[in-house]
Amino acid sequence: MASTNSFASHLYCPKCGKTFDLHEIHHLCDCGSPLLVAYDLEKARDVLHRDTFSGRPANLWRYKELLPVLNDDNIVTLGEGLTPLLHLKRAGLQSDIKNLYLKDEGVIPTGTFKARGAAVGISKAKELGVGTITMPTNGNAGAAWSIYGAKAGIKSVIVMPEDAPSITRNECAAAGADLFLVKGLISDCGKIVAASIKEHGWYDASTLKEPYRIEGKKTMGLEIAEQSDWNLPDVILYPTGGGVGIIGIYKALTELKELGLVSGPLPRLVAVQAEGCSPIVKAYQEGRQESEFFADSQTVAFGINVPKALGDFLVLDAIYKTGGTAKAVSDADILAALRELASLEGNFVCPEGAAIYAAAKQLRQEGWIKADDRVVLLNTGAGIKYPDTLQFDVPYLEKI
Amino acid sequence: MASTNSFASHLYCPKCGKTFDLHEIHHLCDCGSPLLVAYDLEKARDVLHRDTFSGRPANLWRYKELLPVLNDDNIVTLGEGLTPLLHLKRAGLQSDIKNLYLKDEGVIPTGTFKARGAAVGISKAKELGVGTITMPTNGNAGAAWSIYGAKAGIKSVIVMPEDAPSITRNECAAAGADLFLVKGLISDCGKIVAASIKEHGWYDASTLKEPYRIEGKKTMGLEIAEQSDWNLPDVILYPTGGGVGIIGIYKALTELKELGLVSGPLPRLVAVQAEGCSPIVKAYQEGRQESEFFADSQTVAFGINVPKALGDFLVLDAIYKTGGTAKAVSDADILAALRELASLEGNFVCPEGAAIYAAAKQLRQEGWIKADDRVVLLNTGAGIKYPDTLQFDVPYLEKI
Repeated sequence: MASTNSFASHLYCPKCGKTFDLHEIHHLCDCGSPLLVAYDLEKARDVLHRDTFSGRPANLWRYKELLPVLNDDNIVTLGEGLTPLLHLKRAGLQSDIKNLYLKDEGVIPTGTFKARGAAVGISKAKELGVGTITMPTNGNAGAAWSIYGAKAGIKSVIVMPEDAPSITRNECAAAGADLFLVKGLISDCGKIVAASIKEHGWYDASTLKEPYRIEGKKTMGLEIAEQSDWNLPDVILYPTGGGVGIIGIYKALTELKELGLVSGPLPRLVAVQAEGCSPIVKAYQEGRQESEFFADSQTVAFGINVPKALGDFLVLDAIYKTGGTAKAVSDADILAALRELASLEGNFVCPEGAAIYAAAKQLRQEGWIKADDRVVLLNTGAGIKYPDTLQFDVPYLEKI
Repeated sequence: MASTNSFASHLYCPKCGKTFDLHEIHHLCDCGSPLLVAYDLEKARDVLHRDTFSGRPANLWRYKELLPVLNDDNIVTLGEGLTPLLHLKRAGLQSDIKNLYLKDEGVIPTGTFKARGAAVGISKAKELGVGTITMPTNGNAGAAWSIYGAKAGIKSVIVMPEDAPSITRNECAAAGADLFLVKGLISDCGKIVAASIKEHGWYDASTLKEPYRIEGKKTMGLEIAEQSDWNLPDVILYPTGGGVGIIGIYKALTELKELGLVSGPLPRLVAVQAEGCSPIVKAYQEGRQESEFFADSQTVAFGINVPKALGDFLVLDAIYKTGGTAKAVSDADILAALRELASLEGNFVCPEGAAIYAAAKQLRQEGWIKADDRVVLLNTGAGIKYPDTLQFDVPYLEKI
């Protein structure tokens, strides 16, 4: 088998520092923290240069030296990654942010950024010899893991709330996953999954309970750097539920800095949440290192309805370390932003993506974003997966 | 304004040979035929080489010398193109076509290949100073033109059957288009659009009634060539409704041949239709140059429910000239193929895309496709746009 030339060296715990072997299956640290992948960046520094990546295929495996898969034959790909980074000229005028950009994760297999985590997570699961994965999901992650699992020949057992976007059911079922619905929240699904793992010994693919999904999400940060000609933006806004995206982007940027591929201050990272589910915002406002369970959460942006994220301390750390912030927006502002972005720029985004545009406008009005800041909005998915978010009364014409 | 260095020279009629100025608005020829864009390929031959394109951004504008837009400032883009070309190893085993590939047009803004036609069509409309476009649509084309129109600041007036995929309504409406529904077929919508053009002088963006959409679709052929290292496949299967895709691919391949960028015989082009709407298949079987109106058409693959295509003679010409064929498949085979492709390869495709996989299997069984042929399936859109095509009975679990 051909080596990917990955510089991944081992797993480590960001809380207690304990290390683990990359060639074995590991989930959480003994202390309860998620594990992260370490790379031999000193060695990589001599090998990886800005132009190393430029001629490579237009997918996230162009960064394979910085990903955890060790052998090419284990790469499971549907061509995910290198999504568009678009200059929003008209929305920039509207919001008084001249240098406003959208990274559009709708243009990816399965229509959401979850494809990145699933591509890398399933590839590594294949490398580790996994036969069956299981997870609770708000829909899109379960769909993506089922889809990539099908490509890899790995069985998926998926448990989702009945309120999750209905199209994600079809993705799971069509891919041949064992799918179950629950009248409850993702946390209720999580309890069922935990019990089934104890019983059957399946591989736990829950958010941050396996260390590799975050490496897939990391590639969003790598791409933003490369697509900005290695000249990082001033601000990146990210819709934050489980928080893996923002953790991954932060990890990407710090690794790039250690590699000497980027320089200067890191972008200020902004975690955007819905007012109806804003545990990270509350923790940030109170200057805390961890969040508390957000009771009775509710928002039109279903993908960020996560009352308590396992990686909350990593999200807050990324915000504090980069001089970022956390911002909550209302459902009404999310829906208005969705229509505004579609009509000004043709970007028909998911409600989570609309939330960041709403947040950017408000942060600009408050002066936190400066008029000449270069700002990247990360849209996590395609609006076409959410047929019920907007309602229109469409008139009929008579045949002639 | 910076030139695109396009080699586009003029418009011409493929039926009567009459030529038209590229700097003016033109629709059909006086003889009723669609118009095509001509390029100065002799001049281009000296400038364009295989490696001309390799380092360029991962979207269809990498081929801008072979597109009709003359000035860079008129390019309206959402990052469309360079979609994945994937090797289907497991489906290849299943169907006894070892070298089976899928070109996945689900990974593109708006989730269907219609984005290509809209990107180039709207860009050229902008260059020509158009203020309002109008069209009848089975859904996805109208959505794409509305979306790109929004980005360009061009108004769209869209008329679609009420049975068109409902998410495409939201795309049009969110983008700010004037949208109307009709209890009827796309041909009924077409009559209304024709009348409104007479009344208001709007730009007719109906299939093949403007010459530029086909140039956008052409880029699928250019990409297949580049992604195959300029070594063309033996067979390309395409789901055929209006037929613009297959016409565009044929145009691309003949242009590449004239440019000396590819050599050898062209791939055999296969027009795939549904049994419930197969006018091209009927015409091919009878050896005719044009098709007849297919009455009472009906199929689960709504996008290819086109009873009589304006460009039918161009589709049939492409089939005859390449030694291709036309093949109809049943709705039952389409639905089975959809599930098989998703469960074997993780490609959750649209029903039109599933039709070509079903057709490829049948053509292999009949021996028309040889076991060692290199075969490209063109999936025209993402399955996530079709939430109702497959029905699953999903079991519930109790909370614990």
